[in-house]
Amino acid sequence: MPIRKYIQENRERFIDELFSLIRIPSVSAKSENKPDMITCAQRWTEILKSSGAENIRIMQTAGNPVVYAEKIISTDAPTVLVYGHYDVMPAEPLDLWNTLPFEPVVHDGRIWGRGTDDDKGQTMIQVKGFEIALRQGLLHSNVKFILEGEEEIGSPSLADFCREHKDMLRADIILVSDTSMVNADTPMLTTGLRGLAYWEIEVTGPNRDLHSGHFGGAVSNPINVLCKLLADITDSDGRITIPNFYDDVEELTQDERNVIAQIPFDEDRYCKAIAVDALFGEKGYTTLERNSCRPSFDVCGIWGGYTGEGAKTILPSKAYAKVSCRLVPHQDHKKIEAILAAHLAEVAPNTVKIKVSALHGGQGYICPVTLPAYKAAEKAMGIAFGKSPLAVRRGGSIAIIPTFEDILGIKTILMGFGLEQNAIHSPNESFPIDFFDKGIETVAEFYRHFPSI
Amino acid sequence: MPIRKYIQENRERFIDELFSLIRIPSVSAKSENKPDMITCAQRWTEILKSSGAENIRIMQTAGNPVVYAEKIISTDAPTVLVYGHYDVMPAEPLDLWNTLPFEPVVHDGRIWGRGTDDDKGQTMIQVKGFEIALRQGLLHSNVKFILEGEEEIGSPSLADFCREHKDMLRADIILVSDTSMVNADTPMLTTGLRGLAYWEIEVTGPNRDLHSGHFGGAVSNPINVLCKLLADITDSDGRITIPNFYDDVEELTQDERNVIAQIPFDEDRYCKAIAVDALFGEKGYTTLERNSCRPSFDVCGIWGGYTGEGAKTILPSKAYAKVSCRLVPHQDHKKIEAILAAHLAEVAPNTVKIKVSALHGGQGYICPVTLPAYKAAEKAMGIAFGKSPLAVRRGGSIAIIPTFEDILGIKTILMGFGLEQNAIHSPNESFPIDFFDKGIETVAEFYRHFPSI
Repeated sequence: MPIRKYIQENRERFIDELFSLIRIPSVSAKSENKPDMITCAQRWTEILKSSGAENIRIMQTAGNPVVYAEKIISTDAPTVLVYGHYDVMPAEPLDLWNTLPFEPVVHDGRIWGRGTDDDKGQTMIQVKGFEIALRQGLLHSNVKFILEGEEEIGSPSLADFCREHKDMLRADIILVSDTSMVNADTPMLTTGLRGLAYWEIEVTGPNRDLHSGHFGGAVSNPINVLCKLLADITDSDGRITIPNFYDDVEELTQDERNVIAQIPFDEDRYCKAIAVDALFGEKGYTTLERNSCRPSFDVCGIWGGYTGEGAKTILPSKAYAKVSCRLVPHQDHKKIEAILAAHLAEVAPNTVKIKVSALHGGQGYICPVTLPAYKAAEKAMGIAFGKSPLAVRRGGSIAIIPTFEDILGIKTILMGFGLEQNAIHSPNESFPIDFFDKGIETVAEFYRHFPSI
Repeated sequence: MPIRKYIQENRERFIDELFSLIRIPSVSAKSENKPDMITCAQRWTEILKSSGAENIRIMQTAGNPVVYAEKIISTDAPTVLVYGHYDVMPAEPLDLWNTLPFEPVVHDGRIWGRGTDDDKGQTMIQVKGFEIALRQGLLHSNVKFILEGEEEIGSPSLADFCREHKDMLRADIILVSDTSMVNADTPMLTTGLRGLAYWEIEVTGPNRDLHSGHFGGAVSNPINVLCKLLADITDSDGRITIPNFYDDVEELTQDERNVIAQIPFDEDRYCKAIAVDALFGEKGYTTLERNSCRPSFDVCGIWGGYTGEGAKTILPSKAYAKVSCRLVPHQDHKKIEAILAAHLAEVAPNTVKIKVSALHGGQGYICPVTLPAYKAAEKAMGIAFGKSPLAVRRGGSIAIIPTFEDILGIKTILMGFGLEQNAIHSPNESFPIDFFDKGIETVAEFYRHFPSI
């Protein structure tokens, strides 16, 4: 049966299986969702089993468990290791969702709910592509699956898991669907990722909230101080001012800049899609360079003092922020974590106490376009989308990809089917059904073409 | 019966009456506490009645009602108008209270609970001082009481109330207990107050929270922008940088600075009491000048982005702050409100939208030490505390005091019995019982000496 026909005939079942996963609020950042992690892992074992995988296990780690499955067709055949994650981002702010985040629905040609893209939907694409290749006799490689439950909190347990199970995880290439395309008309394969460093900052002033009339003007205000510290981390050119921050940043070559310039990109449309009048970023770089090949500094959250209704006239005791840097090859996230913490400790005034804690991080990644598996992926995507994919570096981070390379010695093909408008990590996350189909087709075609015969 | 004996014999009843008020959570900033405002006003009418006041009424305003009461002894006698407020600040953060904020208790010689000082405790001092003067035949003046329920939100209805009831409120002097002393050993009368301007700022970036990997570096982050805007409002000398901000600020004379220098003040003890290693404020001024006679800028609250558990890598859609300036005579709060809003609108980058709303404000105030009522107050306090009070300008604001002057044409004597360690507006607000006694004695002695005979 042709791949497309198989997808059409089974699509309703595929979506039902995906819905059963979305309904489980497997939010790894929240301890209250701990039981949901187990439920979600178990549900995946059922789906993997019915898709044709064997030797299925839920394997313990120091954190949330890993789901393992495999299909070994021959000890002579090359092995593909498929990685995905079953945890999702928190759904907050809940009041901005048009439907319930954990009650998936289909409308306007899309599947709506937390994880429909990142990464339950995209992992389902991998599993269903595998099912088709297996059932239709297109599989020429062994396949192993590992689905983790801690990607959205920086995969703290997976490195150890890889070290402990190096033998079990032996493979020739890793396949991951957890990235996105520039736009719906431009299929692409991700050949680079940014690294990440993430901190929580706590500034403590007086030992209690003070009356701003009695103390205002005479006592250092921790929110004022925090704002100043954060404001000073970037300059008016959008450059990061922390000493030595750019030391290991690989400068873009003119060739790389030329490739980026070829990516279809409409700045007006980009602005309209997110409803801003103008963009801002590092001087001397284009938007696509800034959001993929240059480091960035963002305050992801800030809080302190009185945030309720009305006006409370206090000079608060504490102020907090969660901040992150996207890093580029070859910035080391541990080094960056240390220099920002040291920098803030140095420049903070002695009128407050400051605590900077690194919460999680990961290195950047580069995938060579000369790999045989890359070429199979390129061909497969060309068939499914009717257009050969571009090789593009992206701005996101998947902490585990450089770790795989480091520990297992395996390169990863980033075969992502996401789109900007899918709103991952945001309210109203969704995934278009036609991309669900094309994604599954791509994966099945990949197995048909790998290894090339 | 001597005043002190009367206090001793009735103290238990006085405290019971105060407790009945503290138990009513009359938080004016919260709409959920609307019914408590009425309950609290009613409780005051009962207490005023049993204290000997007459013609007691709960009078409607556009907001929370005003409690009115009076004791007219003669149309020839001068009239004292006593002002207090029955509303309190929100009790949050609740987890920092050692006892429940609205379940008053006595221990360590203090009464604990929200409003024990500000202003239920201090208003009770006024009412009980009046009761003694009346019952002991010391009263030579008419007395009127107005207790409002919106002081902590800037008294939005009281100006109109004064305009509508000018005749009813006719008086020669206003008496208010809603301020504090420098320390327990230094009785003082407040001869000046700072004004206040308070704003909420909303910065809007993209129309939803964005993935910081996909957009970070290319799209303006509203928290980063807000931090920069707030940081730039003050410079490294602690001066406010908004153009024309200092235009109407009355500079301190050398004489005034000399008086301030005589106020007992131990900077080390001050720092230790609030647990900071060092102070910060406007260059060229002492701490006591900074917190009473110089304007200030404080961020009272800030929020935006992800503030939950763990790390969420977003570039947020919105950022908010509540900010305030304490103002000094003759800064006009309406003018300052307008120039800060205009300034932020002007300097905010076009990559975000900014909305600045003035929430509430008030003018500063000066009381001449030559008034007969001031002299009676000075004498009364000298008797009760065994030491003549200092005349000191303070940093807090009571919006209605300059409004009284403006609308009713009456000066106010600020006869406050608070102390810094009473922690008003903070968790664990309290009031020392010996000051409760001395306060009541002062008020009774004031009536004995006013008008001087």
